[in-house]
Amino acid sequence: VKIAVLGTGAVGGALGFRWAQQGHEVFFGSRTPESADIVDLVKRSGPTAQAGTCAEAVTDAAVVLLAIPWEVTRDVLSSVGNLDGKILLDCINPLTADLKDLQFGFTDSAAEKLASWFPSAIVVKAFNTLSAATMQNAVYGDQNASMFYCADNAEAKAVVKQLTEELGFDPVDCGPLRISRHLEALAMLYVHLAIFEGWGGDCAFKMLKR
Amino acid sequence: VKIAVLGTGAVGGALGFRWAQQGHEVFFGSRTPESADIVDLVKRSGPTAQAGTCAEAVTDAAVVLLAIPWEVTRDVLSSVGNLDGKILLDCINPLTADLKDLQFGFTDSAAEKLASWFPSAIVVKAFNTLSAATMQNAVYGDQNASMFYCADNAEAKAVVKQLTEELGFDPVDCGPLRISRHLEALAMLYVHLAIFEGWGGDCAFKMLKR
Repeated sequence: VKIAVLGTGAVGGALGFRWAQQGHEVFFGSRTPESADIVDLVKRSGPTAQAGTCAEAVTDAAVVLLAIPWEVTRDVLSSVGNLDGKILLDCINPLTADLKDLQFGFTDSAAEKLASWFPSAIVVKAFNTLSAATMQNAVYGDQNASMFYCADNAEAKAVVKQLTEELGFDPVDCGPLRISRHLEALAMLYVHLAIFEGWGGDCAFKMLKR
Repeated sequence: VKIAVLGTGAVGGALGFRWAQQGHEVFFGSRTPESADIVDLVKRSGPTAQAGTCAEAVTDAAVVLLAIPWEVTRDVLSSVGNLDGKILLDCINPLTADLKDLQFGFTDSAAEKLASWFPSAIVVKAFNTLSAATMQNAVYGDQNASMFYCADNAEAKAVVKQLTEELGFDPVDCGPLRISRHLEALAMLYVHLAIFEGWGGDCAFKMLKR
């Protein structure tokens, strides 16, 4: 799969690196693709990785991972050209600056806003309830962390499920994109526990089944 | 611990039975305490269980489990006498009739409303993210389901943590009562998965840690 990874912080770096290691063509998009950090990230990620502007990254991509701050997402996506039929993999949580609340929710979500702003793209909410540490390593003892995702398009979901399983996560299909409201609330609970209740990033939600 | 269990449906029946089996004094409160179902429940629960009106159940209780529908909770609690210092164990989710949404949330929660209506009581949000099947049996293979709870009172939390561990759950202290907003949203996600995505009640959230 040709994957554009917009943003090269902890989230984009972890997922992009690992997908490149799986043999996917990963194109990191950044405002500063020639910075030392990104040159190093590309080198570590291996021969199927490269970096460029966000527009260059998106051009041939089938999947676009949004690992940039919510505040710039609309502007960045408006500037990268044609998004028709591309999967927007939305792992963003629209947190307030103090990390104590979501900016909006309950009757709306970041994913639903993106879908309304970019109707020719296919938004999949995914990877938003996991820490960067868990993105690097999904394994907790004999358990694998769950990755909760939702979307309105079955084919796009199948692509994301595959990309999830390749990284060792247990995919949990949560249904239509509307459920992203609950997934962003779940992320809010996670952020609260990790930051304000002392759990840190080495914890993850799992859906147990019997 | 003297526990009043208001409501004798799947939730009240499961938790009340199991706490009575642990030796706690469980007083089931019901509009129809002499019905065959409740007589049977008391008999099965053992010598430390009894049933009566909700007011009788609450009188000497230290902990009051609210296992009644949200719509009647305020009226019932207004009719049972003094609640000073009692722990209101709130496992209620204020779902819409079609089970597809919460009636309110994001900036409010059932638990926060209860705390504002009954300020002399101590509200603990707990057991609201679990199915009745998981309340009956917390064990999933070599994992125990997590029980997410929150409150503003440390002593009340310690009581609830103990009651949780006695039933085999892994307690997850989620902080202040305000976090009940996120726990009710988590319950909404659970209900969606269980009912509309085919998971059923034999699944449960777990917080993995390493």
